Parts: sequence; structure tokens; C-alpha cells
Amino acid sequence: GHFIVCGYGRIGSQVAQMLRENGVKTVIVDSSDRIRDRLTEANQEFIFGSATEDECLMAAGIDRARGLVASVSSDADNVFITLTAKGMNPNLMVIARATEPGSELKLKRAGADKVVSPYFIGARRIAQMVIRPTVADFVDLTFHTSDMALRMEELTVGPKAELVGVTLMDSGIRKNLDVIVLAIKKPGGGMVFNPPASTVVEVGDTLVTMGPRQSMNRLGQMADAVED
Amino acid sequence: GHFIVCGYGRIGSQVAQMLRENGVKTVIVDSSDRIRDRLTEANQEFIFGSATEDECLMAAGIDRARGLVASVSSDADNVFITLTAKGMNPNLMVIARATEPGSELKLKRAGADKVVSPYFIGARRIAQMVIRPTVADFVDLTFHTSDMALRMEELTVGPKAELVGVTLMDSGIRKNLDVIVLAIKKPGGGMVFNPPASTVVEVGDTLVTMGPRQSMNRLGQMADAVED
Ligand SMILES: [Ca+2]
Ligand SMILES: [Ca+2]
Repeated sequence: GHFIVCGYGRIGSQVAQMLRENGVKTVIVDSSDRIRDRLTEANQEFIFGSATEDECLMAAGIDRARGLVASVSSDADNVFITLTAKGMNPNLMVIARATEPGSELKLKRAGADKVVSPYFIGARRIAQMVIRPTVADFVDLTFHTSDMALRMEELTVGPKAELVGVTLMDSGIRKNLDVIVLAIKKPGGGMVFNPPASTVVEVGDTLVTMGPRQSMNRLGQMADAVED
Repeated sequence: GHFIVCGYGRIGSQVAQMLRENGVKTVIVDSSDRIRDRLTEANQEFIFGSATEDECLMAAGIDRARGLVASVSSDADNVFITLTAKGMNPNLMVIARATEPGSELKLKRAGADKVVSPYFIGARRIAQMVIRPTVADFVDLTFHTSDMALRMEELTVGPKAELVGVTLMDSGIRKNLDVIVLAIKKPGGGMVFNPPASTVVEVGDTLVTMGPRQSMNRLGQMADAVED
């Protein structure tokens, strides 16, 4: 399934680019003439019009989309887009941008699965650089920098994976692949942090791992990772 | 040393609050009447005036400050503040906010130690929620949520610490405290990721750790952590 990105401003344009770089198909919806000219020149798939209108979301393939990013500049419009989109496709994952501090709750009530406030996380990042600068660097390097030798990754364990029913210790993940399992997200939603070596891997577990880039392919085979 | 926060808008006000919550003393510089009234009512230490002027930075105690956050809304003013501040106190740690994509480089050239672009990291966060949602949740919970049972922390090893000259394995950090050492930042600046159990801890090493909150105090004693 593709992602619909509503609003191709400073946030939306960067989101769309990052998604494309990671192999996620995007369809852009924007009503500005300037953006239309830019996207036409760049040969990118887009719908010209306002994402607050059903017809535009329909044209963007909302019925078969995997998710939608509501990233126009007005919080009120993002609330309206979220409500409209969830009404048209309740299974859609909606991530909304909030500018005003009070809007996060309204966007959640409108049905947004996740809300991101750039000002809040910008401020939090600055504070972390003061309070815990080395952890901030560490997270940046392993989570956000794609060309690092060491990476944080996640894998969901498939029903026929060789890891199923095996303990972390016996799996050789740590010993042979030099990978640490930082946490396991259970299919029910709970997260087990720093799981002991005796933990048995189960179908549907999502392993949060940290290790060398070259180990991640082999680990993916062992987990028979489910592609979304 | 204290931190000077220049500009008490959406970003600066949240930064100042987070720093105070973490025990970092802040002095705010802002030239708006509205902010002056608000800070006076809240009984907070501030300098009324523009952070682009030497006198204001002097009044904010720049000569004895540990750092400065340049978070006014204009990138040009943040460049000017950075240049002025570094000229008055070259040892100052300067973190600057950038709004326009092209400003990051200019702020670095002006002497900023770190530059944060809220739009960029907001977009990156949205993309991560799509591409690696479980890792994003994991980082949020262990790094950003202060009341979690499990935390990522950093500790710098003091000259008389009991950890000095001991291997990670013999230290009992993993076995007795249930803490993982994710990385070690060497005093020279390099970062060793996922260090093997045979790694010897040295004076000045900064350990990036993940473990139960209740282990962190004990680990702090063992590292004889240097307070900044
Ligand atoms: Ca998957
Ligand atoms: Ca310290």
C-alpha cells in the first residue's frame, strides 16, 4: 500500500522524500500552483487540490492506501483531513502534524494514530543535547544515520521462521551475529525491554535490535521477516 | 555554569522548561513586552532586550555561562547571536535553531556547536514512524520518557572510579545490574559501539547504557560520574 502525503510544504516535502528513499510509494496532495509546477517538472505523482475534499482523497487512492500524513500548515485543516480520511478508510494509519500546543489532543480525538509537533521535538532535541549529549549522538548515529556500520533495526518474526520457539541464547544472535536484542514488542502490543537470554522467540514478535549492518540481512532470513 | 536561552518563543520556552526540570539553571533573554510581562509574573530570571546586543549577553552572564541556545525566530539573528556569543566567550557551547534549510551551514560557520532544524527532525520523525515504528517507539520510551522503568543514560568515568582498569565482564554491569553498555565514547571523541565483554574501562570514557532505573544510581557510584 502507498502513503498519501497531504501538504507539500517544509514538512511534507521532506517526509515524501524520506519515504521514497526507503521504498515507500507516495502520492502527494497539494492545492498550491507553485507546488503543482514543481511536482510536474519533477515528474512526481500528485493530486492537485485540497486534501480536505473527499474527491481529492479518493483520487489519491485512499481506499487502498496504507496510510496518510496530514502535514498542511493549518492545524484545523489537519483535523479535518484526519476526520475525513478515517471516515473513508478506517484501517488507514494517519500521522498528523501539530503546530499549536493544544492541537495534539484534538488530532487524536479526530482519529490520528500518531501526532508529531515539530516545535516540541525540536525543543526536546536541544534540551537533550545539553542534558545527555552522548546518548543524543548515539541515537542519531545508530537510528537516524543510514550509512553507519552499526544500526538499530526491527524485524517481525514470521510463522515459519527458524527463530520460532528458540531462546535468544540458543539462536546465536548475540554470539554469532554480534547483535543485541534491545527489546521485543509482543503481538499484543506490550514491549519487553532488555529481554534475558532465556527468552523464547514467538511468532509475531517484533525484535528491536542493534548490531552490524552486515548481520541484519542474515537476521532477516532467520526471522523470515514479514514485509508490510 | 548556567545556560542562556535567547528567544522565549515556541521553541525557547519549551527548551528553558526542560532544562529547568533537569536541574540546569537558565537565564532567558527576550525583547518582547508580552514575554517580559509573562516572565515577571512567573518570577523567572530574564534579561529584557535583544540577544544580538553585547550588553544583553553580558547582563545574562555570558562570561561565566556554560552554554547558550540561539532560538529566536530569525535565522539571520541566530547567526548574529552565535557570532557575538562565541566572540565574547569562545568556550561557550552554542546550540542554534535553524528554520530555512540553507541556514544550518551558515550557523556552523558562525561557530555553533550544534544546529537543530525543527522542520527537518519533525519530518524525519514522521518518516521513521512509517519505516521503523517499533524502533521509534523504543527510542521514545527509553530515551525521552523520564518515568520509564528502563532508561538510556550516560556516565563519564572519573579518575578514581572503581570501574577504571576493569573489563565490562568483570565489572558485573551486565550480570549484577542488568545494564547493557551500548557504546563507549572515548575521551578523544570516537565512539565504540556494542563493545565486547573484554573491553577495559578507562578514565574519561563515557558509557552509553540501557538498564533499569534503579541500577543507574549504583552505576553512577561505580563510575564516580563527573558532574558537569
Ligand atoms: Ca515488517
Ligand atoms: Ca557528566
